[in-house]
Amino acid sequence: MDIHKILEQVKNNEIELKEAEELLKKMPYEDLGFAKLDHHRSLRSGFGEVVYCQGKSNEQLLRIYERLYEQDRNVLGTRASREQYELVKKYFPKVQYDSVSRILSIRSKEQEEYQLIGCIAVCTGGTSDIPVAEEAAQTAEFFGSQVLRIYDVGIAGLHRLLSKLDEIRSANCIIAVAGMEGALGGVIAGLVDKPVIAVPTSIGYGANFGGVSALLTMLNSCAEGLSVVNIDNGFGAGYLATQINRLACNK
Amino acid sequence: MDIHKILEQVKNNEIELKEAEELLKKMPYEDLGFAKLDHHRSLRSGFGEVVYCQGKSNEQLLRIYERLYEQDRNVLGTRASREQYELVKKYFPKVQYDSVSRILSIRSKEQEEYQLIGCIAVCTGGTSDIPVAEEAAQTAEFFGSQVLRIYDVGIAGLHRLLSKLDEIRSANCIIAVAGMEGALGGVIAGLVDKPVIAVPTSIGYGANFGGVSALLTMLNSCAEGLSVVNIDNGFGAGYLATQINRLACNK
Amino acid sequence: MDIHKILEQVKNNEIELKEAEELLKKMPYEDLGFAKLDHHRSLRSGFGEVVYCQGKSNEQLLRIYERLYEQDRNVLGTRASREQYELVKKYFPKVQYDSVSRILSIRSKEQEEYQLIGCIAVCTGGTSDIPVAEEAAQTAEFFGSQVLRIYDVGIAGLHRLLSKLDEIRSANCIIAVAGMEGALGGVIAGLVDKPVIAVPTSIGYGANFGGVSALLTMLNSCAEGLSVVNIDNGFGAGYLATQINRLACNK
Amino acid sequence: MDIHKILEQVKNNEIELKEAEELLKKMPYEDLGFAKLDHHRSLRSGFGEVVYCQGKSNEQLLRIYERLYEQDRNVLGTRASREQYELVKKYFPKVQYDSVSRILSIRSKEQEEYQLIGCIAVCTGGTSDIPVAEEAAQTAEFFGSQVLRIYDVGIAGLHRLLSKLDEIRSANCIIAVAGMEGALGGVIAGLVDKPVIAVPTSIGYGANFGGVSALLTMLNSCAEGLSVVNIDNGFGAGYLATQINRLACNK
Amino acid sequence: MDIHKILEQVKNNEIELKEAEELLKKMPYEDLGFAKLDHHRSLRSGFGEVVYCQGKSNEQLLRIYERLYEQDRNVLGTRASREQYELVKKYFPKVQYDSVSRILSIRSKEQEEYQLIGCIAVCTGGTSDIPVAEEAAQTAEFFGSQVLRIYDVGIAGLHRLLSKLDEIRSANCIIAVAGMEGALGGVIAGLVDKPVIAVPTSIGYGANFGGVSALLTMLNSCAEGLSVVNIDNGFGAGYLATQINRLACNK
Amino acid sequence: MDIHKILEQVKNNEIELKEAEELLKKMPYEDLGFAKLDHHRSLRSGFGEVVYCQGKSNEQLLRIYERLYEQDRNVLGTRASREQYELVKKYFPKVQYDSVSRILSIRSKEQEEYQLIGCIAVCTGGTSDIPVAEEAAQTAEFFGSQVLRIYDVGIAGLHRLLSKLDEIRSANCIIAVAGMEGALGGVIAGLVDKPVIAVPTSIGYGANFGGVSALLTMLNSCAEGLSVVNIDNGFGAGYLATQINRLACNK
Amino acid sequence: MDIHKILEQVKNNEIELKEAEELLKKMPYEDLGFAKLDHHRSLRSGFGEVVYCQGKSNEQLLRIYERLYEQDRNVLGTRASREQYELVKKYFPKVQYDSVSRILSIRSKEQEEYQLIGCIAVCTGGTSDIPVAEEAAQTAEFFGSQVLRIYDVGIAGLHRLLSKLDEIRSANCIIAVAGMEGALGGVIAGLVDKPVIAVPTSIGYGANFGGVSALLTMLNSCAEGLSVVNIDNGFGAGYLATQINRLACNK
Amino acid sequence: MDIHKILEQVKNNEIELKEAEELLKKMPYEDLGFAKLDHHRSLRSGFGEVVYCQGKSNEQLLRIYERLYEQDRNVLGTRASREQYELVKKYFPKVQYDSVSRILSIRSKEQEEYQLIGCIAVCTGGTSDIPVAEEAAQTAEFFGSQVLRIYDVGIAGLHRLLSKLDEIRSANCIIAVAGMEGALGGVIAGLVDKPVIAVPTSIGYGANFGGVSALLTMLNSCAEGLSVVNIDNGFGAGYLATQINRLACNK
Repeated sequence: MDIHKILEQVKNNEIELKEAEELLKKMPYEDLGFAKLDHHRSLRSGFGEVVYCQGKSNEQLLRIYERLYEQDRNVLGTRASREQYELVKKYFPKVQYDSVSRILSIRSKEQEEYQLIGCIAVCTGGTSDIPVAEEAAQTAEFFGSQVLRIYDVGIAGLHRLLSKLDEIRSANCIIAVAGMEGALGGVIAGLVDKPVIAVPTSIGYGANFGGVSALLTMLNSCAEGLSVVNIDNGFGAGYLATQINRLACNK
Repeated sequence: MDIHKILEQVKNNEIELKEAEELLKKMPYEDLGFAKLDHHRSLRSGFGEVVYCQGKSNEQLLRIYERLYEQDRNVLGTRASREQYELVKKYFPKVQYDSVSRILSIRSKEQEEYQLIGCIAVCTGGTSDIPVAEEAAQTAEFFGSQVLRIYDVGIAGLHRLLSKLDEIRSANCIIAVAGMEGALGGVIAGLVDKPVIAVPTSIGYGANFGGVSALLTMLNSCAEGLSVVNIDNGFGAGYLATQINRLACNK
Repeated sequence: MDIHKILEQVKNNEIELKEAEELLKKMPYEDLGFAKLDHHRSLRSGFGEVVYCQGKSNEQLLRIYERLYEQDRNVLGTRASREQYELVKKYFPKVQYDSVSRILSIRSKEQEEYQLIGCIAVCTGGTSDIPVAEEAAQTAEFFGSQVLRIYDVGIAGLHRLLSKLDEIRSANCIIAVAGMEGALGGVIAGLVDKPVIAVPTSIGYGANFGGVSALLTMLNSCAEGLSVVNIDNGFGAGYLATQINRLACNK
Repeated sequence: MDIHKILEQVKNNEIELKEAEELLKKMPYEDLGFAKLDHHRSLRSGFGEVVYCQGKSNEQLLRIYERLYEQDRNVLGTRASREQYELVKKYFPKVQYDSVSRILSIRSKEQEEYQLIGCIAVCTGGTSDIPVAEEAAQTAEFFGSQVLRIYDVGIAGLHRLLSKLDEIRSANCIIAVAGMEGALGGVIAGLVDKPVIAVPTSIGYGANFGGVSALLTMLNSCAEGLSVVNIDNGFGAGYLATQINRLACNK
Repeated sequence: MDIHKILEQVKNNEIELKEAEELLKKMPYEDLGFAKLDHHRSLRSGFGEVVYCQGKSNEQLLRIYERLYEQDRNVLGTRASREQYELVKKYFPKVQYDSVSRILSIRSKEQEEYQLIGCIAVCTGGTSDIPVAEEAAQTAEFFGSQVLRIYDVGIAGLHRLLSKLDEIRSANCIIAVAGMEGALGGVIAGLVDKPVIAVPTSIGYGANFGGVSALLTMLNSCAEGLSVVNIDNGFGAGYLATQINRLACNK
Repeated sequence: MDIHKILEQVKNNEIELKEAEELLKKMPYEDLGFAKLDHHRSLRSGFGEVVYCQGKSNEQLLRIYERLYEQDRNVLGTRASREQYELVKKYFPKVQYDSVSRILSIRSKEQEEYQLIGCIAVCTGGTSDIPVAEEAAQTAEFFGSQVLRIYDVGIAGLHRLLSKLDEIRSANCIIAVAGMEGALGGVIAGLVDKPVIAVPTSIGYGANFGGVSALLTMLNSCAEGLSVVNIDNGFGAGYLATQINRLACNK
Repeated sequence: MDIHKILEQVKNNEIELKEAEELLKKMPYEDLGFAKLDHHRSLRSGFGEVVYCQGKSNEQLLRIYERLYEQDRNVLGTRASREQYELVKKYFPKVQYDSVSRILSIRSKEQEEYQLIGCIAVCTGGTSDIPVAEEAAQTAEFFGSQVLRIYDVGIAGLHRLLSKLDEIRSANCIIAVAGMEGALGGVIAGLVDKPVIAVPTSIGYGANFGGVSALLTMLNSCAEGLSVVNIDNGFGAGYLATQINRLACNK
Repeated sequence: MDIHKILEQVKNNEIELKEAEELLKKMPYEDLGFAKLDHHRSLRSGFGEVVYCQGKSNEQLLRIYERLYEQDRNVLGTRASREQYELVKKYFPKVQYDSVSRILSIRSKEQEEYQLIGCIAVCTGGTSDIPVAEEAAQTAEFFGSQVLRIYDVGIAGLHRLLSKLDEIRSANCIIAVAGMEGALGGVIAGLVDKPVIAVPTSIGYGANFGGVSALLTMLNSCAEGLSVVNIDNGFGAGYLATQINRLACNK
């Protein structure tokens, strides 16, 4: 029931003033919430909800998947363990698990037939950055973006990156995933004119401080058009890149 | 001269083999550079070059403005002091200075008549964040984006933010500038479905560590669609937002 | 025996001067200690002692519970493992264990019948913050406060928090438990006019540094009426909230 | 105009449905804001607004004081410089400045006659902590609390603290201000059973890191009933202590 | 008046019970304080009080010197500026100032004739560490220790240190003052078998973090017999070394 | 095929213009890459490729060794586990594993007969630094340098280091491996006039922060001729030392 | 052979000049080493060598004990695991292991009969600090000092500490072991006039950062006569305290 | 007098045994020192001593230059201010000052005619890194190396760096000076096979922490052949590069 209907009922004496007042008092928040869900739905176009699986108890995890199953919708679970996959699979045989990205997803038939749009380039500095890159790439694909994977093009072998430049420049948005020195993001941003989302990874040893070194490198880049998400936050990068890709595709 | 022309000249014996070889050897880098400049030019559409004024010597600064003046182009100078403004003004009377954003710019007539496109919302948590926000806003305007300023809507008075929500949601991209606790970025990202660029500021005292506290808050936000630039980096946010805004406007 | 009695005995020659001197020399500290215990007892009204179980050896733990059992009093054990619960249970079958809060408590019949007073609201940003929140809530209940639990109202979904605002405002004191960006404390403090105790949790990954990010957010909040306890220190928050709640109830 | 009146007007056809709808749509936020202001007013009982003066431009500062003067209300300015005092004084001769606490306040006649209630003890470790302590104390007094000052009772001379214990215990809330090692808060919390608000100060040198050392000491205290505010945040402590003192006085 | 006398008076009815009770209640703390002052006096043998001058207001500083002058005692002021010296000199012409160590002292005739005892070696890594070393050395001398100065023997020129080894080994306690890498303390401790007090200094640049680098080096030394005081804390080292030197001299 | 040949073919009409254009466009990067590989080959003189084994999946590891085996080249694997050794050994029985340095290498017959040149001294502070030192030493040997091992000469027993000084001075380059306080690098650099590469190790406890303490000591050394690599980066030091040793041997 | 003998042989032509030169060149370092060992022996009076067991391989550990056994001397092993104890016991049945302090020692009959001298007070803040305190205490006892244990006297229950003050003051040197807030060292140093060695422990959680919080508290203490050793470095404190105790006993 | 001469005198009875013994006892350290000076002299071939001017008092500075002038040698002063230049110039008119590198040098005629050898490439990321680069370059030139300056080739405009690659590869050693993200060192090390010395600079703002960000980037680089010196330590890099350049030139 929306504001307009309540006011009509008031006008038509179909409702008590006090009751209308109560309804209206609660409404803004519900409305707000509803709007929030609404635009989210419009964003995701029926792709479903996101669950951060790590640290969830078995019971919590199952309850979430159950509720979503009843609503016949899609679900994207991140940071899932193999154990969680096996647990969920017992009840929801459709669930799919990728052991590299650790994404545990259910897709509706409608989503599987969805036509991927635009282009997001996902680059990594090394092979060890691939798990984070795959979390980003598969998140973007789950939400409907086409993804171009360009892995192991770190600056220690710059020629590999340069030979892929034309492809990278063709994307609407670039995700640069790198650990250790983390210079990849800045190098790419200096070579393209599209938004670059840098994802530091916790790969490395010694004074890399679990990714802080790469994070600082990225924040301090003097290349224009670069922004940063949290260490290892492939999901966040994939989600944000999808927002930008959709804007570019006018969706 | 591009590769094609050189090869034609070789074929037609209009050029020595050795000379052609020399030209080609240097070309890729020049090409690369040229491409870079090229797409930059397409990005900026004749708006000009960017100069980080802080720390530049008087001589360096003047030489840069001189070179740009000769090319009859525009220039965006950031972090300029009033002294630098007065210095440059002696030689280039057209130069404009904004003492809040510390932007020192020259605009060509063509640029001044340019029609601003799309919409970027620039929000701040408090009034002390305004200098950084203005650097972002004026950068975006310089590069052709329409800007909506929504200042002093920090989370200590949440109702002010909520009352502006419709306006914020209408933008293609939101820049959230905040110091101290820095929660503004996450709150906005939780309420809209457009990319949010969070800019931590060095405003605050005590355990804020020159903006690190706000930076960490923003990096750790669990709201989706949020990325972060360096502390006080208003320019970077304005530039990146323009890239996104242009994508959304298909420019 | 107090000072007054000793002096009377001196006056009445019922005690040697030297003996009185010895008694008095030790007294201030014992008195101090006694006073301390005394007001603690008055604070806790027979609810018992607190034990930080983590790291205690089995022998140490049993000795403490034994001493308390003999005195027929209550005991609140925090950070207890299931193994410690099973150990203690063998000897003290009345002991109760909550695996979420990890609280291991014995309550006397008198305490169980105690009427809970006032109101403390315990809020969390996410579901992963619940263990810390429960430590706070159950500590407050153990010491006699009524607790209102409002979980999973983090700022990424602000409407959920706003819809609970009236309830939160009705409490004498609010405990805000949040990890990751940790903005919940500041948001609540900006919406109510009661003391808010913020508890950062070590939930998160990347640049959250085991809760330091949330801690800094909370310390730097510009909302008035907010103070902070150590990361994951649910017990400390519950204890402090009880002190404030009692003041408000004039107990 | 509140919800009730709008609905009556709708019922009585005194207002267009569309107009009522518009009014109601904006209302919740205004209501929220209003409520906020309202409870703040009830908290402050006509004592006025708070301004963080540091970093405010002369123009900004004057505009704020002007607006408040017109409303004939009180104002508490913190971190004001002597220059700001002299500026404001020109236009508002009633303004008062304390060079130790750096508080710049205007009090209405009504406020000056207000009867201070309850008791807050403000303690410091050394004499150099006094400016922060005075910010706390004068904030508390401004908002109507009686304050007991107990300065220079740091743990290097424990006997001074112990000799004041009875007085400290008589307060509803204690503010412990200390720099360097910052142990004062924990020592006091171990000796009293009232809420203790610890304020680390940036006093010290070497590895004190501008107050971080004292901050960490306070956060890690194992004494019960202790919480912490930001480094040098005397205002925050005074405000929070007033909230607790009012609860204890049932105001 | 001590406990024994009070009890006698009680016994002899020379004092009211209530009054005796009051006296006894306050006594322990006064006793404690007195004892503290007492042993301090025995430590310092009439050498006087210590004042940390930095940050003291002119008024505070003068009041302290005045009180001490009246008592005809000695005073050791540390971290004094030349301005403070000139201020104090106006009122107390006997005051002496050393611009290197920044010590501002008044010595009684009795102290000036005191025979220095034992031996403390004060070593520095470089010439820039000398101000901190002099604070240590002059503190030790003020409190009655003989001091051996061995400056500029840092590990970059190890032979200089080795050539002084016999002298260093003859001291009861060694103070090793060093900035930058701070390895001096560990090197000396590896060569002698007396307590070594390491003082990190804030000398250096780059990643020395105001002395933290030297501090960490010293804390992590694997040489036995080494302990550390705060960065630049020459006074603390000189005081502690005097305690050890006195123990060795049985004073 | 190089630029010259392509141009000749163009001139002689032996190739289509378009095809030549394509070849040339890709060439610079391939050239660049090739050049890189080329000089690397000249550096390594047929010694092979380097693999960072840690974190590689079994499949990845085998594929790399397989590719190298086919090319009949040598391979240096660092940070290999015993499990990885056993895996690789199944397929490549020639592989050798050193459990101290964790180096997993295959050497061609040609490499095994190679005459080691020059001299690199590898020193350690303690016995626990030996694994990192061996990674450095064996890397240097793998790439053709003669290595002099001087272990356990830390500054806590300076005489051991001094007694080896002549040998150390005879090397072209010194690698100083040390944890805890990490002063070894500076001490050696102060005693020799050859480049010293300092390797901090993560050995230690308490405030050594996983090697950061030693790292800072080394960075802040005032001895000339010292540079630093990442914590525990024995491979990097061994590789760099080989570059210097080869320069000194004019290879 | 010492310098004197060599010179005599030169004088008497019993040795070649060249040979004498060689012997003399090496001598200073050997001499130095010898002196070092010598004074160590005089320090330890036959108590033996110290081994840091943690991280030693079984082979290394056994070789060390074997060498020491042959010399019929004593050995103090720190940070030993139970496994290491069982390993060593097989070969050296006399070895003793304390599972709290993790000290693994062999004492000669002569040492066991040694009369302990002087007095060192070892205090802890809580029961969890006892392992570090025992490492300190048993180290001091191993090297011949009498030790007074005063445990669990942290500042949260100040009266317990005060009631032990006379005993503490009777010691020549005090070791204060404390984690969490770490204020114990400063409190004791403020109450006694003997050297206090503060040992921060890694006990605690949240923002204690593995003992850094306690370390900073101790470094920043404004109490005089306090120095600090590394986190958890009980051995270092026990060794240093013994040096001071010996000085006080003139041994 | 050296060992050989003393022994001869002993043999010839030209010296007392006791006196010879005394001379020999002190000699090793003097010898060591002498050797040190000796090889330093051979390294520097009459180029002179190095003075770190910053923080030196006027008196200290003059005394050093005076001593060196008397010896008719060269001197390299680093981090000199213009004031120091003007002071020194009064007494030593030959002194030269470069206001960019802040080097204050005196060169003998012999040194000025010295033929520079080999080649060191000094590269910078931006123009603001030039002062540090010039300190490195001029240090290297002072000590006899030929220097190739390649400035402003940071990774944000990679083509500029690539176009200079041949020149960079021709050097014996490369110094890479960069602030902000600091990726230059790793990029160059990935493109050349000579030792690269990375110098982080304190240029930048926000989360660059005075150069720590660039330092960490460089330490974590996965490119081979890279080592790092302290932030802004141009002198250290120039000195070390000279050592390597000399090795390559066999000098």
